[in-house]
Amino acid sequence: MGVILAINAGSSSVKISVYLADKGKAPRQIAESQVDGLTAPPAQLKYSRADETIIKGKNVDTAVNSQDDAFALLLKTLVDDAELKEIGSKSDVSIACHRIVHGGDYGEAQIITPDTYHHLEALSDLAPLHNGAALAIVDSCMKQLPDATNVACFDSQFHSTIPPHISTYPIDPTIAKKNKLRKYGFHGISYAFISRSVADFLGKDLKQLNIIALHLGSGASACAIKNGLSWDTSMGLTPLAGLPGATRSGSVDPSLVFHYASDVGKLSPASTEKLHISTAEEILNKQSGWKSLTGTTNFGTIAASDEPQHRLAFDLFVDRVCGFIGSYYVSLGGRVDALVFAGGIGERSSRLRDAVVGQASCLGFAIDEVFNNAEDGGSAAVRDISSKDSQHRVLVCQTDEQFEMARACTDMEALWT
Amino acid sequence: MGVILAINAGSSSVKISVYLADKGKAPRQIAESQVDGLTAPPAQLKYSRADETIIKGKNVDTAVNSQDDAFALLLKTLVDDAELKEIGSKSDVSIACHRIVHGGDYGEAQIITPDTYHHLEALSDLAPLHNGAALAIVDSCMKQLPDATNVACFDSQFHSTIPPHISTYPIDPTIAKKNKLRKYGFHGISYAFISRSVADFLGKDLKQLNIIALHLGSGASACAIKNGLSWDTSMGLTPLAGLPGATRSGSVDPSLVFHYASDVGKLSPASTEKLHISTAEEILNKQSGWKSLTGTTNFGTIAASDEPQHRLAFDLFVDRVCGFIGSYYVSLGGRVDALVFAGGIGERSSRLRDAVVGQASCLGFAIDEVFNNAEDGGSAAVRDISSKDSQHRVLVCQTDEQFEMARACTDMEALWT
Repeated sequence: MGVILAINAGSSSVKISVYLADKGKAPRQIAESQVDGLTAPPAQLKYSRADETIIKGKNVDTAVNSQDDAFALLLKTLVDDAELKEIGSKSDVSIACHRIVHGGDYGEAQIITPDTYHHLEALSDLAPLHNGAALAIVDSCMKQLPDATNVACFDSQFHSTIPPHISTYPIDPTIAKKNKLRKYGFHGISYAFISRSVADFLGKDLKQLNIIALHLGSGASACAIKNGLSWDTSMGLTPLAGLPGATRSGSVDPSLVFHYASDVGKLSPASTEKLHISTAEEILNKQSGWKSLTGTTNFGTIAASDEPQHRLAFDLFVDRVCGFIGSYYVSLGGRVDALVFAGGIGERSSRLRDAVVGQASCLGFAIDEVFNNAEDGGSAAVRDISSKDSQHRVLVCQTDEQFEMARACTDMEALWT
Repeated sequence: MGVILAINAGSSSVKISVYLADKGKAPRQIAESQVDGLTAPPAQLKYSRADETIIKGKNVDTAVNSQDDAFALLLKTLVDDAELKEIGSKSDVSIACHRIVHGGDYGEAQIITPDTYHHLEALSDLAPLHNGAALAIVDSCMKQLPDATNVACFDSQFHSTIPPHISTYPIDPTIAKKNKLRKYGFHGISYAFISRSVADFLGKDLKQLNIIALHLGSGASACAIKNGLSWDTSMGLTPLAGLPGATRSGSVDPSLVFHYASDVGKLSPASTEKLHISTAEEILNKQSGWKSLTGTTNFGTIAASDEPQHRLAFDLFVDRVCGFIGSYYVSLGGRVDALVFAGGIGERSSRLRDAVVGQASCLGFAIDEVFNNAEDGGSAAVRDISSKDSQHRVLVCQTDEQFEMARACTDMEALWT
């Protein structure tokens, strides 16, 4: 039995979920702490123990302005809470697992050694906008928690099963191999959680589960899961490809950015000595998406509005999501157990689900309005919103990346010997 | 009654089809001449009158190495042929219509005046790799055929009906408007021909025709046609987006090219004073596609081979084509009269059709093996290869862009007054 911290660093937030866990058993969450708003100071701290909210949203010192600062604050919050008996001191933490976006060729979670760490740093070249924050925290962890084992869980690892004719880009294979250019895919920790939960919910063997899963949040993607494994996904070499997001364009004509501004190949001011980010990647990842169309990153606001630019963004998103549903339906040969909505938007926007399923009704998907509009599925990870006559199920899954990371640790032999 | 030359300039070929035409009537082809292999000298000349082959494939002077030279040679061939009585001299040509790839906001064919010509030149910024050859020939025509009216037929014009939520890119709308960045789509002259021919074949009013059309050649695209109008298409701001082609990557992660080589934003050596082509666009348009995977641009060779790289390219192409079929099936709400194969590969590769329709069988498409493998549909523009139990028809259409351009001219009031 040991304490696992599952650490999820986003571009402006850091979240730690604390679990009690044992080899091969489902981890049990005992606390959760989070800092939000790092890019819009003052940042806010939240903390809950078991099901009790301890700190609801407290402004934190303006000196807390990096992922690294946030992590130190969160760790202190856990250690200082006398009621959280499982963490009396830092040395009570056995395992710290980290969500890392780009794992390159890694097909499973890795115990972080100095060697792995250097390899992860090298991978940041492929994902300069995405791996940086997590790596900074891994670095702190190795210093601040010398007794803990650090584990890297990759958003790309779930997709290592995508077959070559789908993951290959039709470009010079020598350069592709040398520069590691292929479809990797992301949101895989979420898709692993979704697959397991949906298989459980349907009472199916995971190895026989075929679903079209949609992780729709400020970053959005779709995934075709065949026999429990990733068969295709909408993101690519980087999380830019595929669906648009809050500030991300998704797939656009690869020529577009060269007509958007001049010198887009130059380094953006966001680059650091170690991380090289082109102006083009900065534009398409940070200055696009529905924020660029509507002024807000809040998709709930967009879905509720009848303003023309908001309607356009909503309809555009529905169109792109439905495109992937159709594409993956064919890719799975029509053998689809369920269409699954997850992620902040997928879980919360009944209007989006209604529009998407309405458009995809020709494939045999249909929802029940009452189920779709029910405010809450309670504590269940999965709820069914299909109508009686739907040929395939339509489900909503409350995805939980932290849990999935902790669970993955309970499966790693090397951590428990 | 007048003589129309329909001129189609590709990257290494120029083709002129000669028609006798009258207002509002179907044009009748009386001759055809073509120069191929401009980029692999010596170029070859072909010429036929009515159904008779006059020149089968003669090496031409190595001084013929531009589209402009080729056009002059083709025109001379027509004028010098004493048997082609309709063209006794250059002044017998009433109309020269030109296939222009990128027409920007033009929703219909345009009579070329000095004003239009300058506008077309400006558009070349959006399509430096594509509009150049055609414009060079328009320029020659205006000099060599002073008595003819020049007409521009745009590959993009058919797609002007794509609705905003599909044609809009989720990027800064101010920059999009200023730089004219949206989905335009191409192969539209072919899709116009296909729509009309299929409506005729099915005995349907064009305004009620819903099809998924595939123009698959060394450039490949897909189009969802709803009520006879383009509703969506796979190419975008430029012909690069969407399906891979002989040397074109199709849609790839927009970040990819920045990880492919450094300085990809710089001008490529293929640039001229007037036409600015980035290294990135040169790589993705000219050094990618199935040639980069297999070494050949000949898809027939690829389809017939069991070599691993050829299988990969074949399977990859089938996967991408099927992705668009699924996507457009949903976009059309399942109301699909037919799936239509056209273009060099679509018309000739029964193996590709078999693989694509097999994968898309879950949508209710099925082909008859005998019909699919029949060598030739004779002179009919459209042939049916569906099996009896196919829910939607599967058709092959011998597309004819030259005919469609000539036909469009017979519809233009201003040309016949």
